Amino acid sequence: MAHTAYQTEAYQRHWTAELPPNCQLMTLPGLFTMHRGGKLEQVQVAYETLGQLNEAGDNTVLLFTGLSPNTHVASSEADPEAGWWEFMVGPDKPIDTKRFFIICVNSLGSCFGSTGPSSINPETEQLYRLDFPELSVEDIAQAGHGLVEQLGIKKLNTVAGASLGGMSALAYAALYPDGVENLVSICAAAKASPFAIAVRSLQREIIRSDPVWDNGAYDINQEPVEGMRLARKLGLISYRSAEEWDHRFKRERVLDKPNKQSFDPEFQIESYLEANAQKFIGSFDANSYLYLSRAMDWFDVGQHGDSLEDAFNRLKLIHALVIGVETDILFPIQQQQEMATLLAQADIEVDYAALASIQGHDAFLVDEERFAPVVRKFFHKVATLAG
Amino acid sequence: MAHTAYQTEAYQRHWTAELPPNCQLMTLPGLFTMHRGGKLEQVQVAYETLGQLNEAGDNTVLLFTGLSPNTHVASSEADPEAGWWEFMVGPDKPIDTKRFFIICVNSLGSCFGSTGPSSINPETEQLYRLDFPELSVEDIAQAGHGLVEQLGIKKLNTVAGASLGGMSALAYAALYPDGVENLVSICAAAKASPFAIAVRSLQREIIRSDPVWDNGAYDINQEPVEGMRLARKLGLISYRSAEEWDHRFKRERVLDKPNKQSFDPEFQIESYLEANAQKFIGSFDANSYLYLSRAMDWFDVGQHGDSLEDAFNRLKLIHALVIGVETDILFPIQQQQEMATLLAQADIEVDYAALASIQGHDAFLVDEERFAPVVRKFFHKVATLAG
Repeated sequence: MAHTAYQTEAYQRHWTAELPPNCQLMTLPGLFTMHRGGKLEQVQVAYETLGQLNEAGDNTVLLFTGLSPNTHVASSEADPEAGWWEFMVGPDKPIDTKRFFIICVNSLGSCFGSTGPSSINPETEQLYRLDFPELSVEDIAQAGHGLVEQLGIKKLNTVAGASLGGMSALAYAALYPDGVENLVSICAAAKASPFAIAVRSLQREIIRSDPVWDNGAYDINQEPVEGMRLARKLGLISYRSAEEWDHRFKRERVLDKPNKQSFDPEFQIESYLEANAQKFIGSFDANSYLYLSRAMDWFDVGQHGDSLEDAFNRLKLIHALVIGVETDILFPIQQQQEMATLLAQADIEVDYAALASIQGHDAFLVDEERFAPVVRKFFHKVATLAG
Repeated sequence: MAHTAYQTEAYQRHWTAELPPNCQLMTLPGLFTMHRGGKLEQVQVAYETLGQLNEAGDNTVLLFTGLSPNTHVASSEADPEAGWWEFMVGPDKPIDTKRFFIICVNSLGSCFGSTGPSSINPETEQLYRLDFPELSVEDIAQAGHGLVEQLGIKKLNTVAGASLGGMSALAYAALYPDGVENLVSICAAAKASPFAIAVRSLQREIIRSDPVWDNGAYDINQEPVEGMRLARKLGLISYRSAEEWDHRFKRERVLDKPNKQSFDPEFQIESYLEANAQKFIGSFDANSYLYLSRAMDWFDVGQHGDSLEDAFNRLKLIHALVIGVETDILFPIQQQQEMATLLAQADIEVDYAALASIQGHDAFLVDEERFAPVVRKFFHKVATLAG
C-alpha cells in the first residue's frame, strides 16, 4: 500500500516522520466516540499486516501492542528489520504468517501513526496535547475494530496481546462478542491492580514534575527527557525481576572512572538502567505515555457486565490462552490465574500457562524458550478449527 | 541527662532543634576514621535509653534504626509520646525494659542528632552537605560502638535492628566480634541486592533531579520537597506489598472533586501515596537521605572475610534471630533464608521466622500480632542465659 496519505499529511508530525516502512494508515469514517466522553474526527489507525487473508476470511489475528512498541512486530520482505516480537511472528513461527493474516495495530493514543495527543486536531489545526479526550483501553479496542471493519473482515480468528495489549484484546472480546472467536492474553489483567496503579501514577508524576513538560505544552522537538528518563527506570524496575538481576548483575561494578562521585552509577545495575533509559528517551511522546498509562489504570472489564463474572459470561469466545509469569510483579501470576478461572467459569476452553521465566513482566519479549511452544500449540489448535 | 551541649551548640541546626525530649547526645573522643576514607572530628551520637543497666552490665540491647526514624523508639516517663516501635519495646513488652537496658541510636549520617551532612563541620564552621565523607553501614556500626564504649559497657547482650538497622547490627557483630553475644536481624540482608540498589538509585536520582536540591546546597529551610515527595512514593511502593493494597484499597476511588483532571489522584491508592509523602516531606534532610541510601547499596558483610561464608564464620555470636516477611520485595525472604543458613553454618544457634504478614517490608512496624511473639521468645531466651 502506498504511503500517500501519510506522506502528504502526517510528515509534518514529529513521530510519524519515522514510521516503519511497512506501516500503513487507515482513516476511520465518521466521528469516533470516546468511551469516557468526547469525540474525535478523522481518526487514523496505523497498522502492519503479515501473511494473507484466506478466501474464507477466517484466519485473521489482530494483535494489540504493549504501551510503547510501534506496528513493526516482525520482519518481512517489505521491512526486513527485526520487529519487537520477531521470535513469535513469521513464517513457521508460533504465530505462523503462512497460516494466519496478522494485523498489528498501533494503539489509539500512541504516537506511531495512530491518532493521539501528538496528532493534529483537525478542528484547531494544532496538536491535541492535553486537549485529547480521556483515553480508555476500550477506545484502543474500538479503533482496532474500526480498522478491521474498514479492511472488510467480518470476524477475527483471534485477538491477542501482552500487557496493555492483553487488556486491549480482552476489551475487544467484551465490546464485540460476535467479532472474535479466540483470545490470547499474556501478562495482562481483567482489571488494573492498586500496586500497578501506584507504579504508573508515580511514573506520570515524575514526567509531569519535569518543568520541560510544561503541562503538556513542550516543544515537540524538545521533550521532557529528564522526566521520561526517570519514569523509564521505574518502568524497568517493574518490568523485570529481582531474581533476574541477582543472576545477571549481582553486585558487579562498572569500570571505575576517575573523579567518580558517590552518587554516580557504580553498580552494573545502575549502568543498565541508565543505558536503557537513554535509549528510551526521545523514542516516545510524553503526552502519549501519560494517556496510555492512565488508560491502563482505568481498565476493569467488569464494567461490561453487572460484575466481573457477568462480564466474562457475556463473552462468546471459543478458546482462550492465558499466559502469566511467576516473577511478574506488575501483572502478578494471581491475576493470570484469576483470568483463567473467570474464562473457564464462562464455559470457554482455556489453556493456562504459568511460566517460570525469571525476566518478570518483560519475559514475553525475551523468553522464547518458554513462550514460543505455548503460543505455537494454541495457534495450531485454533488454525485447525477455523481452517 | 541535661541537654546542655545540645542547647548551646546544636540549636542552630535545623533538625536537632526538634529532637525528642529523651534524646541524649554523646560526643566521641578523638578523630573518627570513616571506612571508605576521610575523618570526622567531634562526632556526636544521639541516643535514647530505656530500662536500667544491671550490676553485671550484661543486659544491654543496642538497637539500630531503619533509614528514617529518630531515637524515640518507645514511650517512657521521660517522653510519654508513642515511639516508632511502641509495641515492641517497653515494660513487659517483647523487648522488656524491666529486664534489658535498651539503647536506641540515631545512625551516623542521619539528621536527628548524630553527626551527618546537615551538621556543622567544625573545620569550616559550615554545614557539611556533600563534603561529608562517603558513609558506610560500618561507620554507623562504629558510631554505635563508640557510644557503647563511652557509656562504659563492655559487651552487649544483643545488637538488633530492622532494615538498615539490621544491616548495621550485622556490621556491628562483624566489626566487634567480642563485643556482642546475640544478634536480631529483621528484614535485612547480608548484602544489598541489585533490585534494592535499583530502587534506591532511582530514589536518589529523583531527589537529585529536583532543581531545588542544587547539588546539596539547598537552603536548609527550603528543601527539595518535590524530589523528596516523589522519592518517598517510590519508597512506599517498595516498602508495602501488592497483596496488602489489593485488600486495603482495591480499585476504590476518592470522592470526586469538581474540575478533576485526568492525572489528579483518583484512586484511593494514589491518595494514600500522596498523604504519606506529604507527611514525610520536611521531616528528613535530603542529603542525609542520599548518604544513608547509598550506604545501604555498598553493604556487603562478605567484605569482612575472604568470602561471605568466611565473614559469618568469624562472628562470635551465640544466638541469632532472623525474621523475614514473605511479601517483602525490598529484602525478600530468600535473603532472610540465606542469612539464617549462613549463621547456622557458622555454628550460631539460629531462630528463623518467615512471617506471612501482608504488609511487605514495613510489616515489622505494624504487624504486632506476628512479630511480637517471635521477638518476645528470643529475648526471653537470651535474658535467661545472660542474667
